[in-house]
Amino acid sequence: MAQATMQRTGAVLPRGLDGVAVAETAVSDVNGTEGFYHYRGIDPTSIARTATFEDAWFLLHFGRLPDSSERAAFADRINAAMAMPPVLRAALPAIAALGPAGSMDVLRTAVSAAGVALGCRPWTEQDAATTEQQMISIAALTPVLTAALYRLARGLPPVEASSDLGFAANYLAMISGETPAPERVRALEVYLVLAADHGFCNSTFAERVIVSSGADVGAALSGAIGALSGPLHGGAIDRVPSMLEAIGDASRVEDWMRGRLDRGERLMGFGHAVYRTLDPRNTLLREVAREIGGERVALAQVVERTGVRLLNERKTDKRREANVELYAGVVLDYAGVPEELFACTFPIARMAGWTANLLEQIANNRIYRPAARYVGPPLR
Amino acid sequence: MAQATMQRTGAVLPRGLDGVAVAETAVSDVNGTEGFYHYRGIDPTSIARTATFEDAWFLLHFGRLPDSSERAAFADRINAAMAMPPVLRAALPAIAALGPAGSMDVLRTAVSAAGVALGCRPWTEQDAATTEQQMISIAALTPVLTAALYRLARGLPPVEASSDLGFAANYLAMISGETPAPERVRALEVYLVLAADHGFCNSTFAERVIVSSGADVGAALSGAIGALSGPLHGGAIDRVPSMLEAIGDASRVEDWMRGRLDRGERLMGFGHAVYRTLDPRNTLLREVAREIGGERVALAQVVERTGVRLLNERKTDKRREANVELYAGVVLDYAGVPEELFACTFPIARMAGWTANLLEQIANNRIYRPAARYVGPPLR
Repeated sequence: MAQATMQRTGAVLPRGLDGVAVAETAVSDVNGTEGFYHYRGIDPTSIARTATFEDAWFLLHFGRLPDSSERAAFADRINAAMAMPPVLRAALPAIAALGPAGSMDVLRTAVSAAGVALGCRPWTEQDAATTEQQMISIAALTPVLTAALYRLARGLPPVEASSDLGFAANYLAMISGETPAPERVRALEVYLVLAADHGFCNSTFAERVIVSSGADVGAALSGAIGALSGPLHGGAIDRVPSMLEAIGDASRVEDWMRGRLDRGERLMGFGHAVYRTLDPRNTLLREVAREIGGERVALAQVVERTGVRLLNERKTDKRREANVELYAGVVLDYAGVPEELFACTFPIARMAGWTANLLEQIANNRIYRPAARYVGPPLR
Repeated sequence: MAQATMQRTGAVLPRGLDGVAVAETAVSDVNGTEGFYHYRGIDPTSIARTATFEDAWFLLHFGRLPDSSERAAFADRINAAMAMPPVLRAALPAIAALGPAGSMDVLRTAVSAAGVALGCRPWTEQDAATTEQQMISIAALTPVLTAALYRLARGLPPVEASSDLGFAANYLAMISGETPAPERVRALEVYLVLAADHGFCNSTFAERVIVSSGADVGAALSGAIGALSGPLHGGAIDRVPSMLEAIGDASRVEDWMRGRLDRGERLMGFGHAVYRTLDPRNTLLREVAREIGGERVALAQVVERTGVRLLNERKTDKRREANVELYAGVVLDYAGVPEELFACTFPIARMAGWTANLLEQIANNRIYRPAARYVGPPLR
């Protein structure tokens, strides 16, 4: 019998589907050449100074910014969804004991457990409003789970979300047990708004592939965290602080960085797969960091200038710039997010974009079932 | 500013990437038109009567069937990997309490937890042998977790894997607490070998997208279970028994099925997205079911004949046949797998193909980061 191939004609697409449009989307867009991105036509950097995370989430979900009554209603809805189902709360100590606090695989497991505890069923077998509420609930529970796992790992009891606080303030309060100062909340809010979505990235694609089978939203969102945890995607936000610490002082920056590059090692906080310009998120986070001020910010600025110079001296194929991670750590640190939770704070923000993408996928679904070209031995 | 699109030219691909080859693979192939599939050139239906599941797994991993010493060594390796890490065992009661026994979302959570407990790190940050061992361990633990969750939900203590039994026999023994009869093990083994892989399906694609970011294999394999749990992919193996029960008697088959079709409902156990012929897996499972005999098999045969006739009377666009699910339930029931565990027995088998696909992806990786055509409002 002849060799069997799922596709006998036609070329295999570029590896990783690089540059190939696999879907239409109205959620968000990234223009890496010109260096901007937007959520449904709104530039996140233009609203991040004043908008809450709930505003950005509303925008991603409903296609426009809320008016004042919608804003209050949506914030209430998110707040209500931050209450943990008792069966989930009961499972958290055992989940926290599985691995190190702040690691994304522990959070992925807790989010998967949240899907079960919320009774998420295949969306093909329940009404659309139920599925939408389950997405909101999982996303709203993500900071609750992150903070609770962090406290449990320290032998501290989890802190429940307060109905008096918004999403960002609640996250900080659930970590520390104290009501955060407004300027700290605002710094976190800038980060969360900027990181809420970023086009059709690897984790967004992964969750859309998963949910396209009819799988429940817990499967899709835990899968998305899994994808985001890969260093080629989710990056190294939690390694920038240790880099700054290792460098220690502005006078050592150039030697330290040259040494690293000479050994063929990567510099943390530089380069992006899509942007060929300054990362627009970095521009705003750098501004916020400057306002925060202090030694670490001054050091980060020297690191940025030196890194960009050294990288572009060595490689001239494309322009290299600092990325979103370089100042994100400084801003999160100021906000009161412990370094161990930097990594998990990224999916907390990204849940807004992920849920908007799930809504879009479900509204007009077709299962992702591509072909592959079989290149192994023929059927014997 | 002009509307931003990630891709300004070129068509968006067919929805769901239907028929589009996104990769090259040497793991397995499906020919839906001619009605056959194979693992690395070997027809699984030709070996399923005699091969163990470990043989099929070895074939998928290493590209050929093992010789007798390799066979013993690989079986020992799998067996050793069935020992649960204590921290995982400790977490299982809380995970079991999250939802109904036998549901794939509970298993997905336990598999994610196994990834953490095994210390799985991004594969880009550890050596290849460690990553491969973690895949083997997660796959080997999947029946252990499935059986333990089932027993915990019944208030029974989990049963550990025995070093005297193979993979299939251990699964049955860990469910019931008793050593299974050889003919029951053989029936299960036929199912496991046949279901071990099936081309570049939705869940295989999902796990490859996840692992392509550098994510750990726990992320990829729990994501694959998530994708498989969607009714458009993993199907309805656990609904065939309740259909047979609802019909009750051969004399009622035609009326029952006509009624369902008249109400626009789906018949369980018929139709396949890829096969336009008899599903080759069904052909063998039907044979095995006939040998098992009994009333349920007789009923299933009437259901098959009647269903195929009615479906092809009504829709003539393509030939409809019974699928792998119709007799799989009969065979699993005979083997001693409780109906509640039919659904989770599918990913237990599929882990062999999933791990082989992960090995292939990692050996020649590029992150899946497709584009999307932005069709929302332009940047304001």
